[in-house]
Amino acid sequence: MTTEETRSPLDRLLSPRSIAMVGASNSPTRIGGTVFANLLRAFPGEVHPVHPRDEVVQGRTAYRSVADLPEAVDMAVIAVPAPAVVDVVAACAARGVGGATVITSGFAEAGPEGRALQDRLTAVARETGIRVIGPNCIGYMNAHGGVMANFMVTVDEPLPTPGPVALVSQSGGFGSYITNKAVLAGLRLGWFVSTGNESDVNVANVLRHLVERPEVGVLLSFAETLRNPEVFVETARRAAELDKPLVLLKAGRSEEAARAAMSHTASIVGSARVLDAVCQQYGVFVASTMEELLDLGTIFQDGRRARGDRVVVMTSSGGAGVLLADEAGLAGLSVPVLPEEEQRSLAEKMPVPFYGSTVNPVDTTAQTTAMPEAYRKVLFSVAGSPSADMVAAVTWARPGPANDAIVEMYGGTDKPVAILSTAWSEQFQEAGVPTYTDPRRAMVALAALVRQSRRGPLPETGFVPDAGRIGRVRALLAGAGTETTLLESTGKRILAEYGVPVTPEEQVTSVEAAIEAAERIGGAVALKVMSYQLPHKSDAGAIRLGLRGADAVRAGYLEMLDEVAAREPDARVEGVLVQRMVPARMELTCGVNRDPVFGPMVALGLGGVLVEVLSEAVLLRPPFDAETARAALRDLLGGRLVTGRRGLSDAEQDAIAQVMTGLGDLALELPEVAEVDVNPLRVADDAVYAADALIVVGHG
Amino acid sequence: MTTEETRSPLDRLLSPRSIAMVGASNSPTRIGGTVFANLLRAFPGEVHPVHPRDEVVQGRTAYRSVADLPEAVDMAVIAVPAPAVVDVVAACAARGVGGATVITSGFAEAGPEGRALQDRLTAVARETGIRVIGPNCIGYMNAHGGVMANFMVTVDEPLPTPGPVALVSQSGGFGSYITNKAVLAGLRLGWFVSTGNESDVNVANVLRHLVERPEVGVLLSFAETLRNPEVFVETARRAAELDKPLVLLKAGRSEEAARAAMSHTASIVGSARVLDAVCQQYGVFVASTMEELLDLGTIFQDGRRARGDRVVVMTSSGGAGVLLADEAGLAGLSVPVLPEEEQRSLAEKMPVPFYGSTVNPVDTTAQTTAMPEAYRKVLFSVAGSPSADMVAAVTWARPGPANDAIVEMYGGTDKPVAILSTAWSEQFQEAGVPTYTDPRRAMVALAALVRQSRRGPLPETGFVPDAGRIGRVRALLAGAGTETTLLESTGKRILAEYGVPVTPEEQVTSVEAAIEAAERIGGAVALKVMSYQLPHKSDAGAIRLGLRGADAVRAGYLEMLDEVAAREPDARVEGVLVQRMVPARMELTCGVNRDPVFGPMVALGLGGVLVEVLSEAVLLRPPFDAETARAALRDLLGGRLVTGRRGLSDAEQDAIAQVMTGLGDLALELPEVAEVDVNPLRVADDAVYAADALIVVGHG
Repeated sequence: MTTEETRSPLDRLLSPRSIAMVGASNSPTRIGGTVFANLLRAFPGEVHPVHPRDEVVQGRTAYRSVADLPEAVDMAVIAVPAPAVVDVVAACAARGVGGATVITSGFAEAGPEGRALQDRLTAVARETGIRVIGPNCIGYMNAHGGVMANFMVTVDEPLPTPGPVALVSQSGGFGSYITNKAVLAGLRLGWFVSTGNESDVNVANVLRHLVERPEVGVLLSFAETLRNPEVFVETARRAAELDKPLVLLKAGRSEEAARAAMSHTASIVGSARVLDAVCQQYGVFVASTMEELLDLGTIFQDGRRARGDRVVVMTSSGGAGVLLADEAGLAGLSVPVLPEEEQRSLAEKMPVPFYGSTVNPVDTTAQTTAMPEAYRKVLFSVAGSPSADMVAAVTWARPGPANDAIVEMYGGTDKPVAILSTAWSEQFQEAGVPTYTDPRRAMVALAALVRQSRRGPLPETGFVPDAGRIGRVRALLAGAGTETTLLESTGKRILAEYGVPVTPEEQVTSVEAAIEAAERIGGAVALKVMSYQLPHKSDAGAIRLGLRGADAVRAGYLEMLDEVAAREPDARVEGVLVQRMVPARMELTCGVNRDPVFGPMVALGLGGVLVEVLSEAVLLRPPFDAETARAALRDLLGGRLVTGRRGLSDAEQDAIAQVMTGLGDLALELPEVAEVDVNPLRVADDAVYAADALIVVGHG
Repeated sequence: MTTEETRSPLDRLLSPRSIAMVGASNSPTRIGGTVFANLLRAFPGEVHPVHPRDEVVQGRTAYRSVADLPEAVDMAVIAVPAPAVVDVVAACAARGVGGATVITSGFAEAGPEGRALQDRLTAVARETGIRVIGPNCIGYMNAHGGVMANFMVTVDEPLPTPGPVALVSQSGGFGSYITNKAVLAGLRLGWFVSTGNESDVNVANVLRHLVERPEVGVLLSFAETLRNPEVFVETARRAAELDKPLVLLKAGRSEEAARAAMSHTASIVGSARVLDAVCQQYGVFVASTMEELLDLGTIFQDGRRARGDRVVVMTSSGGAGVLLADEAGLAGLSVPVLPEEEQRSLAEKMPVPFYGSTVNPVDTTAQTTAMPEAYRKVLFSVAGSPSADMVAAVTWARPGPANDAIVEMYGGTDKPVAILSTAWSEQFQEAGVPTYTDPRRAMVALAALVRQSRRGPLPETGFVPDAGRIGRVRALLAGAGTETTLLESTGKRILAEYGVPVTPEEQVTSVEAAIEAAERIGGAVALKVMSYQLPHKSDAGAIRLGLRGADAVRAGYLEMLDEVAAREPDARVEGVLVQRMVPARMELTCGVNRDPVFGPMVALGLGGVLVEVLSEAVLLRPPFDAETARAALRDLLGGRLVTGRRGLSDAEQDAIAQVMTGLGDLALELPEVAEVDVNPLRVADDAVYAADALIVVGHG
């Protein structure tokens, strides 16, 4: 047992060398019978049943209790009634068991009593160090270790063909469902883990564990909630370093669900969108449908990488070829015209007379159905073309020489291949040929592969808080007393500490001081009343724009204070902000919100009236570097913000990136700041200025 | 033969009562052998082979030539070498044949010589009245009439189960491919027509014919080009009147594919966005993928309609239920919470203890796997619920009592049903139960069904040109001589004729006249130099904004003309436009462009700098009524333009709709106007004004 001592409890739980099952049954229709039978199917080590009465369970000597077990097994499967579970897990911990897989239902999902039971279970795990999967789960499969600790299949159903794909699912039923589908779709699952109620081990923990395992090459996951974002992000970072694709299918994305999770002010930040943004930032693929999760698994499972984004399409149906080319374009892949020399060489292999195309898509036409050797030669030429980073081919699911040629071609190249077929084909699945039943699905998968092939490790983002700055800003915050919404003038001083360019401005308390300030500032100025009671300045008449010269400033100042006094007699005026009018070719908005799951997120979107009309924004989770911010900016609005004729210049993009990283630093250094809203951020002439700022502080 | 005389040639071609085949072969591996064998499979009437030498072809007496045929058959299939085709078709016409299906390749797709052959074929059809399908097509199937005039299957493959679905495809290979997939997916095809090179009959013609046929309930089509937009629109109108869904899958939507399609069929590919807009306007469903085309066919083939948009989801896997609810929300369906009474009644049928949900999704949990009777009762209650307009249920593809219950439930309700299954199931296909392998696909299909259930006939859009107005506007156009881009002032006068509110303005030629005009107009004004040489006024300094009072107008006028004289000495100034500055809470752009396929299209989108950043716009094909324009406006930017806090008021929406219908009338009355661009259309205070206008006229 000495080597066991050096293994972590989670490792013992998921890769056990010895197993016990409490609640093992002789009755094959009971879950306890199904799971035990599955455990016996492929496990090379000992499986000890624990049973209160039976001497033998399914041919194995049973033990009366956990304490009676002949060894401190690595893992115990538990399928006893809910009220007994906590004591059994505690007994396992006392016996030296590494981890428990709790199948039993009737915990948090069943109401307050179950919730209390589950809390006790969590406590036992925390106190003793035993790791717990479940409760209310379907168990797990580690096909490489021969562990079928689950009832996802019955004992008369075949085991999946093991391979490099790991699927981690919170939902057991769905996991079983999708595993079933995965087998039908030719996906080679080496691991399936359902985490159920996640009393201890959650989806992120399992992914974090599996990403390090050498036999795992692809990580697929399905989750309704992400309980451990830090571990999830760390897993994404490791997945990037190890070049293992990580794909997430998230439930609860519909507008109703997103609306519930939205933070209170920002209409541009919703939880599903935050998750998408986080995945984008850390290189995690988001599957938008169940089939896409499997489709990406299928393209990734052979471990191939693409040298570029050029796909050559081979078809005997012109229409299907056009659809594939269509979807390649929509997915961001290129469908290059083949060089003339290659086209000539292809033409020589084609039937005569030839009415197809050698351009790309290479269309052999239906003529080649009767000429399998021509089809084969053209297919091999296409696969060998220096212009092809990837190969896509169209075929029927019915066996024949064309499909034989495809299998042979796939085995003879290291380029990624995607086949469009009328249906799944056993021949392709046995050979591991990635097969798709729709042109879009094929090209979405190849595009993901290109993205994976191009990425490297994530950028380092070491962040060191600046204690001096924190001190200065906290002094400013103290000035607001118990107010939660800061004055614009205070907000601007805080922004300036974080390198955000703000409009040149001075706060004054007399008309004469305003005139002097306006002279110092120069050009046209705006006047704004600073009052904690007037957060919406324009509604209260507390703003004047475009004043030029002493007379205009004087008149505007007096008129404005009169109007405010008349409309909001109870508002206490702290001063008047004299502010330079800065030009704007474009108005943006930039802010910080705190997501309940992922914490602070920096958002950037279009400003002005459009912030309400257009909800598109880029979101980044700090810390991030300026290059990440610029890359995100390039993604906004399909890139048109950057490439448009009057789009953002290089200098403007740099300035915006600086604003974003500054707000990110602010969010990390000042957890008491609940929300920052810079709107508008005025952009013109290679510069940006925060022309207004709203900062909300949470007290307590 | 007398009744035949009253039938149209197209009807005789597609629903023949007698058939001949020229090029029929005794060799089963030749296309002429395959097609003839297929013709003999199910056709109840005579099929006469024409063969130059053989006395008998596949057991039928052969004739030496078309002229020798014993009767004027309704339809002839032609599979002779390309150079012989035209003469054969001409001989058919002379013999009184109604139509020809030309399988032969080697026409327009094969280069200039083939193009010339095809033109001769078209000429024969036009001159004699014989209708021609193809050439370069795979033929067609009319399963109701027993006509298998194609080689989409070989004679040893089973025929599809006939049903109400018609598929019309330009591409023969793709049509065969998708027909094969359709059969696997349980779609009941009654018709499949491939139109190939469309020398005479095109996709729109066939759809127009089939929409009237009583046995056709659903029309699916795949096209790379739409050659006959008027017939397509007329078909859409009839489909709406007859409540028959029409679904289009269009290839050539990306640049890559457009290139491939060009090389494939040498055809003009219109703008994908225009096609989407036209389909939206006329109620045609656009399938975004091949599988979606089949998915919509599957939901529509049983002819059921939904009374509302409420779907109740039944699942034994919580995760799958959440995904279905998610996708329902994303597709615009509602997933109502079931009334408490119904929930109590459902709970009584559930296993005890019960850890699932009765809310909706109704989650029976895996417990019911062992309790088929409970599953069945709950399923029937869900289907019978007054809260359910539609039912969605999750199941495994493996046979068992759950799937038996689903089949029984489907047969016992008239509500639309969509089943999420791990794979296609023979049992469901035989029973006609609509089955989907992905939650999104199921909900996209149900959402389409709701849209179809809610629609009525398309609005009447009788358009009568106004001769007086046309005369007045042509006089204005004449004033521009040979210039192609009109002066803003002329453009505004033309817009005003079509009810578009334009900024109050006067054109002057002296500074004193400008001052007087500014006084009459009132408030702040803009000055703009009118010159055919200065279409981009701001680049040339030919514009001054916000001038108030005589001094400012005088100074601005003189300064502006000096600047223009210095910067553009060759520009001839026609006058200066004095224009009221109108307020804008929002700037839009509205215009007319002419699509090569669909003709004039009226566009409305965001204006100002954003017209370049955001390409989203609504497009409408005139004529259309104001209500259609308002509905389109409500669709723009996901509805946020209308619902946002500072969005468009009712009066503003009406005013914009009036601008759009006005521009539509303009486009119809004045074919010589190539382009209209109103940017910005300024919106504020319940009114809109065209603040600038660019009209381009095509001469010749």
